[in-house]
Amino acid sequence: MTDDQRFGLSRHVTLPGPLALDGGGSLAPVEIAYETYGSLDADRSNAILICHALTGDQHVAGDHPVTGKPGWWERMVGPVKPIDPARHFVVCANVLGSCMGSSGPASTDPMTGKPYAMAFPVITIRDMVRAHALLLDHLGIDRVTVVGGSMGGMQALSWAATYPARVTKAVVIAATARHTAQNIAFHEVGRQAIMADPQWRGGDYYGHGAGPTAGLAVARMAAHITYLSEAGLTEKFGRRLQAREAKSFGFDADFQVESYLRHQGLSFTDRFDANAYLYITRAMDYFDLAEEHDGLLANAFKGIRTRFAVVSFDTDWLYPTAESRIIVQALNAAGAAVSFVELSSPYGHDAFLLDSPELNRVVDGFLSAA
Amino acid sequence: MTDDQRFGLSRHVTLPGPLALDGGGSLAPVEIAYETYGSLDADRSNAILICHALTGDQHVAGDHPVTGKPGWWERMVGPVKPIDPARHFVVCANVLGSCMGSSGPASTDPMTGKPYAMAFPVITIRDMVRAHALLLDHLGIDRVTVVGGSMGGMQALSWAATYPARVTKAVVIAATARHTAQNIAFHEVGRQAIMADPQWRGGDYYGHGAGPTAGLAVARMAAHITYLSEAGLTEKFGRRLQAREAKSFGFDADFQVESYLRHQGLSFTDRFDANAYLYITRAMDYFDLAEEHDGLLANAFKGIRTRFAVVSFDTDWLYPTAESRIIVQALNAAGAAVSFVELSSPYGHDAFLLDSPELNRVVDGFLSAA
Repeated sequence: MTDDQRFGLSRHVTLPGPLALDGGGSLAPVEIAYETYGSLDADRSNAILICHALTGDQHVAGDHPVTGKPGWWERMVGPVKPIDPARHFVVCANVLGSCMGSSGPASTDPMTGKPYAMAFPVITIRDMVRAHALLLDHLGIDRVTVVGGSMGGMQALSWAATYPARVTKAVVIAATARHTAQNIAFHEVGRQAIMADPQWRGGDYYGHGAGPTAGLAVARMAAHITYLSEAGLTEKFGRRLQAREAKSFGFDADFQVESYLRHQGLSFTDRFDANAYLYITRAMDYFDLAEEHDGLLANAFKGIRTRFAVVSFDTDWLYPTAESRIIVQALNAAGAAVSFVELSSPYGHDAFLLDSPELNRVVDGFLSAA
Repeated sequence: MTDDQRFGLSRHVTLPGPLALDGGGSLAPVEIAYETYGSLDADRSNAILICHALTGDQHVAGDHPVTGKPGWWERMVGPVKPIDPARHFVVCANVLGSCMGSSGPASTDPMTGKPYAMAFPVITIRDMVRAHALLLDHLGIDRVTVVGGSMGGMQALSWAATYPARVTKAVVIAATARHTAQNIAFHEVGRQAIMADPQWRGGDYYGHGAGPTAGLAVARMAAHITYLSEAGLTEKFGRRLQAREAKSFGFDADFQVESYLRHQGLSFTDRFDANAYLYITRAMDYFDLAEEHDGLLANAFKGIRTRFAVVSFDTDWLYPTAESRIIVQALNAAGAAVSFVELSSPYGHDAFLLDSPELNRVVDGFLSAA
């Protein structure tokens, strides 16, 4: 294995577009930042596209070139892992609307020469998928296996529904086919926190200091709670106090869980653009695969030959197992090949990112099957 | 029934104090705003103290004198209701730390002649209870039945643990004996939203415009989600759009649930003081009745003769049934008389405030028993 295979190749492509968008209008050019690991085999049959979650990026494996942190899914992608660059040609691309190199609200609007800010078009999960389909065209990849957790799982579903002939297999982990009222509500709290921050300036904060960091931190804190289970929080923090022996009877972070959340909020603002958070949460809230198919989810998968693996976690209350069952029932109704498993984990929604030998076994078995 | 009995008597008392506080120090004077309904009988045996929740007030029944809205628990308190002014002498008092007439951060600090703001002492649920015990002393009430839901239920527990000889019966609804890490986390998001608002000004916003209304609205929105069940939100809103036919592909409130949450947040800022929200959420987060009794909850109730009714709701994920079971097990371990029921409701934590014939039957039966 060369260093390129080991650490990934950080790449960027400007596709001329225009990309037609679900909201009407189109986007041009379409910038996509991506990484690849391994090599495409001679018959172009070993490509795996990994779709990242809301705040993820293309650095799925190998150290992040800026932060130096390990890739976000090294437990799944790497030597002797279920997704292995020695066998697979792995592609992971930053989603449209994000801020890690793909076109998003922080990108330069060619019409003005300034950042789009809120002039960036509101996009959908399907728009993200279409943009990445252009990337696969560019890379000469026709048929692909798509794997993703959380919003990545939504993309995997949308990939199969939008390009059924291209998607050989789809692995849909801790995901949902539509955002529920509660899902939307939590995202709306985050958006309101950002937009209430005077530093947001209607989105035009680029070049005016740090932007709405306080609002973005609150948004991240609220969202972060939904990624963890109540039991996981209790196990990790309980009511334990910070490095003092008694309550302060003040408003400092007395409890470890307070300190942890504040850190999660603040550190997030160093790496993420607030407007991108608005756009991506909006795309997730708009996601309703049934609605895109005359209100019947099974219609999304009619006659599909893609093979599906659907995985949920028993303590995930953001996208609980019931949502995965809805997906599985629709796939069954459409006559699609689907295997489903609910895994047990104390860690809630975030379980798919953490150490889970069962998840690795499921993905390995599914990808290895002929 | 006179008008006074029907609509309640809005009252206010200044108790000289000083009231010793759990955090050290003391408070003087102690202002308590309260309402009464009905009359104390000759042997002073028919008093019922109703304890309100986080953002509640003393106007439990009858129209609110300012807003004109019905009392917050008219389903439970009123003519031919389980708590009936024709039979009971009902007292409901605003909690210490709040902003409806009892001493709180918006009250005038006698040392400076200005609002306390963050100079108000951090208080506990037990401090709230001790302040209300002074009120009952003032009213000549020795023995009392204490009834409360949510934070009101925490007060009922604290009443029994602090004044076991005074509390004849206690009704503890949709409550918990301690705040969990997840409970603390949600409150911390709200506090950070308030304190991140530049209009908060370190708490010194009184006399400087509207105060941190944007932050307070976000805090309320986040909290409000925890009061409702996922199923209740789905039933009430689902993914239904506002009064337009299609998505706007913008950031207005497209979904009904977004519009509802925004309204909840904004209307809350008209009636509640942001600093009071900080103080009361802190008191709730500090609440851990076991911790106050050498780490064993049963110790809180040793030898107690109070009779308890504990009620939970199956869809309450803020204080789920498991928390009520912990209370019941401790009461059993202490040899206390306790009846427990989990009621079924689609409405989550807020169920105790809504129409629930089963809850009324349980409370009526328990209060009527000799």
